[in-house]
Amino acid sequence: MLKSIEWTGESLRIIDQTEIPARLVYKELSTINDVYEAIQQLRIRGAPAIGIAAAFGLYLGLRYEEIKNRTDYLEKARYYADYLSKSRPTAANLNWALYTIIDKISTKKYDSACILSRILDLAQDIQKDDEIRCAKIGKAGATLIRNNISILTHCNTGLLATGGIGTALGIIYTAKDHGKKFHVLVDETRPLLQGARLTMWELQQAKIPATLITDGMVAYAMQRGKVDIVIVGADRISTNGDVANKIGTYNLAVNCKYHQIPFYVAAPLSTFDLSLTSGEHIPIEERDCQEITNIWNKLSITASNTNCWNPAFDITPANLISGIITEVGIFKYPFHKEFSKLNKYAYQN
Amino acid sequence: MLKSIEWTGESLRIIDQTEIPARLVYKELSTINDVYEAIQQLRIRGAPAIGIAAAFGLYLGLRYEEIKNRTDYLEKARYYADYLSKSRPTAANLNWALYTIIDKISTKKYDSACILSRILDLAQDIQKDDEIRCAKIGKAGATLIRNNISILTHCNTGLLATGGIGTALGIIYTAKDHGKKFHVLVDETRPLLQGARLTMWELQQAKIPATLITDGMVAYAMQRGKVDIVIVGADRISTNGDVANKIGTYNLAVNCKYHQIPFYVAAPLSTFDLSLTSGEHIPIEERDCQEITNIWNKLSITASNTNCWNPAFDITPANLISGIITEVGIFKYPFHKEFSKLNKYAYQN
Repeated sequence: MLKSIEWTGESLRIIDQTEIPARLVYKELSTINDVYEAIQQLRIRGAPAIGIAAAFGLYLGLRYEEIKNRTDYLEKARYYADYLSKSRPTAANLNWALYTIIDKISTKKYDSACILSRILDLAQDIQKDDEIRCAKIGKAGATLIRNNISILTHCNTGLLATGGIGTALGIIYTAKDHGKKFHVLVDETRPLLQGARLTMWELQQAKIPATLITDGMVAYAMQRGKVDIVIVGADRISTNGDVANKIGTYNLAVNCKYHQIPFYVAAPLSTFDLSLTSGEHIPIEERDCQEITNIWNKLSITASNTNCWNPAFDITPANLISGIITEVGIFKYPFHKEFSKLNKYAYQN
Repeated sequence: MLKSIEWTGESLRIIDQTEIPARLVYKELSTINDVYEAIQQLRIRGAPAIGIAAAFGLYLGLRYEEIKNRTDYLEKARYYADYLSKSRPTAANLNWALYTIIDKISTKKYDSACILSRILDLAQDIQKDDEIRCAKIGKAGATLIRNNISILTHCNTGLLATGGIGTALGIIYTAKDHGKKFHVLVDETRPLLQGARLTMWELQQAKIPATLITDGMVAYAMQRGKVDIVIVGADRISTNGDVANKIGTYNLAVNCKYHQIPFYVAAPLSTFDLSLTSGEHIPIEERDCQEITNIWNKLSITASNTNCWNPAFDITPANLISGIITEVGIFKYPFHKEFSKLNKYAYQN
C-alpha cells in the first residue's frame, strides 16, 4: 500500500500532494520548519495525516536540542507543539497528536536520556494507531454499502489523508475488498480540487469505477437518483455531533436532508474535540483569495482585483448527520448519549 | 452601454465571451456557420443573447440565396432555422426567435423582393425588443432589493447574456441606478466559470461591490447569514413554472428552501415554452467531459481517463421558486393562474 507519510529513520518522507495527479513526488522533511511548511502549503493534508506529520515534526524540532534540564526541555517541547499547532487551525487531530505526546512526556518520569527516543516512539505509535483505526472504520462503514449503489464522496479522505487506508474512502476500499460492486461519484471540491486531483487518482489506482462532477451538480445528481448515500470525512467534531469538514460538506448535508439520502461522516475518535460543546466554537480557517482566483497559481479565472471569501471548512450541524462512523462503531443521531462514552476510547499508550 | 451583439450593416459583431476577462475581443460573424459555431462554442451565450444571434444567423444564411419561388424559399428558411436551433438544445429563446421569424414570413404575404429585408428587420426588432424587456424586468425586480442586503447570483445574466442590461443582473443594475446600496455574492459557476469570468467582470465595470465564492460555499454562506435573496436567470420555463437554468441553480434553490431565503428567477417571456407542461420534458444539454477535466483546455485538474457527468443545466421545480420576474411583472408561486395569461403577452410585431 502506498504511504503518504513514512519515517525513514532520519527524516519524514511524504507524498507531496500538491503534485498529484501530474506526478508522484516524494519530499523529505528534515526540520520542524519543513513540516510546518508542508502542512501549511497542503503538501500533506487530511486531518489524520497532519496529526501524524506534526508528531514527527515535534521530534524533528527537538532532536538537536541539548537536554540539560527536564523542565526547560518540556517548555521547549510545548513551545514547538504550540508552533506546529498553528500551521492549520481547524483539524482536531493536529492538536490531539501534539498534546497527547506532550502529556505523555510530561506526566511520566522519563529520564532525560530517554525522552527524545520516547517522542519518536510516540509519533510512530500515532501513525500505526491511525492505520488500525482506519481499518476498523472501514470495516464498520462497509456494512452500509449495498451492492449496485452509488456513493457520493467529497474532498479526499483516503490513503493520502491518513496513516492507513483512509476514513470515508477507506470504507469504499473495504467494501470493494468484501466483493461489493458499486459506483463512486466524486465532487471536485473547489477551490483546491482535492476530489478531482486526489480522490479520482486514488480510485483509479484502486480500479474502482468513479465519475467526477462539479460541486454545483450534487443537487441535480440527487434529484436524478444518482446518489444513494453520501460519506465524507471530518476535521473536527464537537461533543454535540456538529462536524467541521472541507467546505462544501454542509451543502451536501442540506441536499441529503432535502432528498432523503443518508449522510454519514467517517472519522477516528482523534477527530473529536471533547472541549467543545458545539460546532460554533470550532475555528474555521479562512485561506487566501488567490486559491479561488488563480487555480494552483497557474490559471487566473476572474477579473483582476476580485474580492473573495475563502473559508476552507464549514460546519454541518448534528441534526443533518445520519451517523458518524468511527473505529468503535457507528454513532447514530442524536449523539449525546453515545458520545458520553467517548472518554473511555481516548488514545492510550 | 457595452453591447454583446451588434449588427454592423454587413455582419454580426459579438463580444467573444470566451476571451473575457483576459481580453475584450470582438468577433465578426459573416455566415450562418459562424453564428452556429459562436453559439455552440459559447462565444455568445445567455438565453436571450443566443436567440438574438440566431435571428441574425438566419438572415446571414439566407442573404445570398436567390429568391425564385416563395415556397422553396420558405422551405430553405425553415431548414436553416432547424439547423441553428440545434446549436444548443436547452434555451427556449433560441427556438422562440427563429420560429417567430419563420411564422411571420410564412403567414404574411411579403413579396419576394421584400422578404429578405423583412427578416433582417425582424432580427433587429427582436434585439430591440429584448433591450426593452430587460429594462422592464430590471424595474420590476428592483422592487425586491432593499438597502444593505446581500444578493447571491449565479452564472452570468447581464449585458453579455442579453440584448440589454440583462435579467437577474439587470435587476442589480437597476437597483443601483435607483440609489440602492447592496452587496453581490457571485458563485463561480463551474465548469465554465461564467460567474467568476463574466459576472465579476461586469460588476467591476459597474463599480458594484461583489465577492466571489465557489459553488460549494453557497450553503455555508447562507448558514452564516451572508445571503438575503437569490436571483438567477432562466434558459427555459415550462407552463407549470419549472425552470431550466445553468447547472447549480437547483442546488441554490434547495438551499434557499432550507435556509428560508427568497429564491427568484428573472426571465423575459420569450423564455417560456408554452408547449411544455413540466420541466421533465425540457431537454438538458450534456456537454463534453473535457469542460470539467481541463479548465478552458488550459489546465488539467484530474487524473487522465477520468469519467465525468457534465449536464450544462438543471431543473428547479416550481415549488422552490418564490417568484418569476418578467417584463410584465412578478409572477408568484403557484404559477398556473398567472401563467394562463401568458399567451396574451406573446411577441407581437
